[in-house]
Amino acid sequence: MLLMMSSDNSKSSANTLRSLIFTPSTSAHSPPSATLSVLDQLLLPHETKYIPIRCVQDAWSVIRTMQIRGAPLIAIVAVLGLAVDLTSYPSTIRQLEGLGVDEIKRVIVEKMEYLKTSRPTAVNVFNAMEELSTTILADSSLTTREELLSALMTHASYMLERDVSDNRSIGSHGADEILAKVDERTNVRVITICNTGSLATAGWGTALGVARELCSRGRMEGIACLETRPYNQGSRLTAYEILTEKMPNPCLLCDSMISSYLATKGSSNTVCIVGADRVCANGDTANKIGTFQLAIVAKEFGVDFYVASPFTTLDVKLKSGKEIEIEERPPGELLESSGAPKDMKCWNPGFDVTPAAYITGIITEKGVVRRSEDGTLDVEGFVEKMS
Amino acid sequence: MLLMMSSDNSKSSANTLRSLIFTPSTSAHSPPSATLSVLDQLLLPHETKYIPIRCVQDAWSVIRTMQIRGAPLIAIVAVLGLAVDLTSYPSTIRQLEGLGVDEIKRVIVEKMEYLKTSRPTAVNVFNAMEELSTTILADSSLTTREELLSALMTHASYMLERDVSDNRSIGSHGADEILAKVDERTNVRVITICNTGSLATAGWGTALGVARELCSRGRMEGIACLETRPYNQGSRLTAYEILTEKMPNPCLLCDSMISSYLATKGSSNTVCIVGADRVCANGDTANKIGTFQLAIVAKEFGVDFYVASPFTTLDVKLKSGKEIEIEERPPGELLESSGAPKDMKCWNPGFDVTPAAYITGIITEKGVVRRSEDGTLDVEGFVEKMS
Repeated sequence: MLLMMSSDNSKSSANTLRSLIFTPSTSAHSPPSATLSVLDQLLLPHETKYIPIRCVQDAWSVIRTMQIRGAPLIAIVAVLGLAVDLTSYPSTIRQLEGLGVDEIKRVIVEKMEYLKTSRPTAVNVFNAMEELSTTILADSSLTTREELLSALMTHASYMLERDVSDNRSIGSHGADEILAKVDERTNVRVITICNTGSLATAGWGTALGVARELCSRGRMEGIACLETRPYNQGSRLTAYEILTEKMPNPCLLCDSMISSYLATKGSSNTVCIVGADRVCANGDTANKIGTFQLAIVAKEFGVDFYVASPFTTLDVKLKSGKEIEIEERPPGELLESSGAPKDMKCWNPGFDVTPAAYITGIITEKGVVRRSEDGTLDVEGFVEKMS
Repeated sequence: MLLMMSSDNSKSSANTLRSLIFTPSTSAHSPPSATLSVLDQLLLPHETKYIPIRCVQDAWSVIRTMQIRGAPLIAIVAVLGLAVDLTSYPSTIRQLEGLGVDEIKRVIVEKMEYLKTSRPTAVNVFNAMEELSTTILADSSLTTREELLSALMTHASYMLERDVSDNRSIGSHGADEILAKVDERTNVRVITICNTGSLATAGWGTALGVARELCSRGRMEGIACLETRPYNQGSRLTAYEILTEKMPNPCLLCDSMISSYLATKGSSNTVCIVGADRVCANGDTANKIGTFQLAIVAKEFGVDFYVASPFTTLDVKLKSGKEIEIEERPPGELLESSGAPKDMKCWNPGFDVTPAAYITGIITEKGVVRRSEDGTLDVEGFVEKMS
């Protein structure tokens, strides 16, 4: 049970923002069990409230309502929610009683399929479910219910730990990449969109993890975060994280102000770093709506534009961005938050696709995919090499 | 008193949005007097409330607090507010009693200087005050207090009427210009930012006036308005006007969605039309923050980008955009509306400058200034020719 105990993240320091609290049982004498709760990000920064996740329905619901968001966090909550449901939710425990291992596997597959419907744009949930399938469901050495559920719980805990350590590697590769382009006395100004920090992941961050690493190396001059309409993840979450981390010269901008900001404040030693929901074989990248526009502006001003994301976000089954399904959110969400008349029509996509030609490089925990001189990004080749 | 009577716009039809209600006295037996009230645009679209303007302090205040906005409207409210103050505000009437014409002129100049401090970016207030100076204050034939105030009131009423007729000419020139570029069976899709309609002017609109003209000619396919952070003039005001006018296929977008919208929905037979707060001799244009970014995106997609504004907005004393003073708004306004932590730093410029190279043409009531092949806009030459 050592691995499970070490994945108990409830004992983190009080100053760290925790997107989730996962507490596995530590008893060796009873079947595995765990509790999970997640920070309601719709209430931040004004209220800190954790929502208990007891079953896959709870997990699906917090993903769909955007109480939690961020592709890596969504995946880990789906995984941990599944583990909690199967091991600790009374009605599921009763459902599984008396079932054979194959029947239990069919129940698990059903729950996985259900979880995959919560956010179709993010590949991470799909990948995480596939990983559980290939490591646990396909393992014929697990012949009892106890062995199966125990292995699933252990692997879920491992995935939680791995998320944090992968994020730290992304930060390190990203900081190396960016600092290699400036001289030793020059610090870097970062521009980012949405929230890709502790709150978007199990605990460190992807794009904001790179910023955090630059900061911890003493090489950050300042950081500007975009408001990120219509949900304001930048102003509510990233601003909150930046202040908590005490990053130097924090600045909030409306999404429409980037061009004017770069024109007014200058664009040298500046870099854009964003997260990703999916990266295609050709480098086209789906991320929070507004990312493509930031990339266009970065190109106009000659500013490097990096995507930072876990290796699992690289989805080479998709040849190009044209194959990415973009989730359209309900119009009421935009109308209400913008003060528009209720009968106004609107278009409210949750994500957009940034073509590879606008992306300087893709930073993963396994290294950086760089744009070649002909403007292409060989994500497919990188994935083949690193898998 | 005929001119003054005809400028009474309180009898407009009930379905027209009225940004202000100006009611001059119609009696020929007493000194000129008038009442003025303006629609509080911060409460729209949910509440329709008119604020009485009795003196220049009231006018200054509604401009500064953005209860009214839109460069042409600001100017006309400053002019009418001055007329109301001088003719109908008890404490000013007492102040002027017994003063000679030259002393009264000094009081008027003081009030004009005060009004000019309400919104430094908009040239229209400056121009309107200068027009009153050269037509009224410089007129040596006005030798009594009654003659002076009566002439000022008459000219203020004339400026109100002229605003509407100039707007209609802008609409007509703009529609001609845009329709000349598509074939007869093709209708036009319009993208606009901020509010440049009836609510931004005395009653018709500049950029939205062009859209209204396209619409009345049956040549509009649809219109997308940008939310326009952080004040949401697009979602609150333009969406409201578009719905009131029953324009075809209205659509609200966040400022960050333009790029994705054009990539997804296509960019053919599409045109961007925006207003202006100042246009410089070289064509550089100051307008609502976010305009420059829209222009960058339009250029990236090969979409024409037009500025529509009254001739008086062309300020050839300013050689280029570098000479435009950009008003920075209090950070609290952005922090509150974006849900950011209160101690976050932010940058909140009210306007930005779009370089001439991004502008296809500038539409005025006197004609269109077109970008030449070398990317320049000869605003200075146009003003010389048309003045």
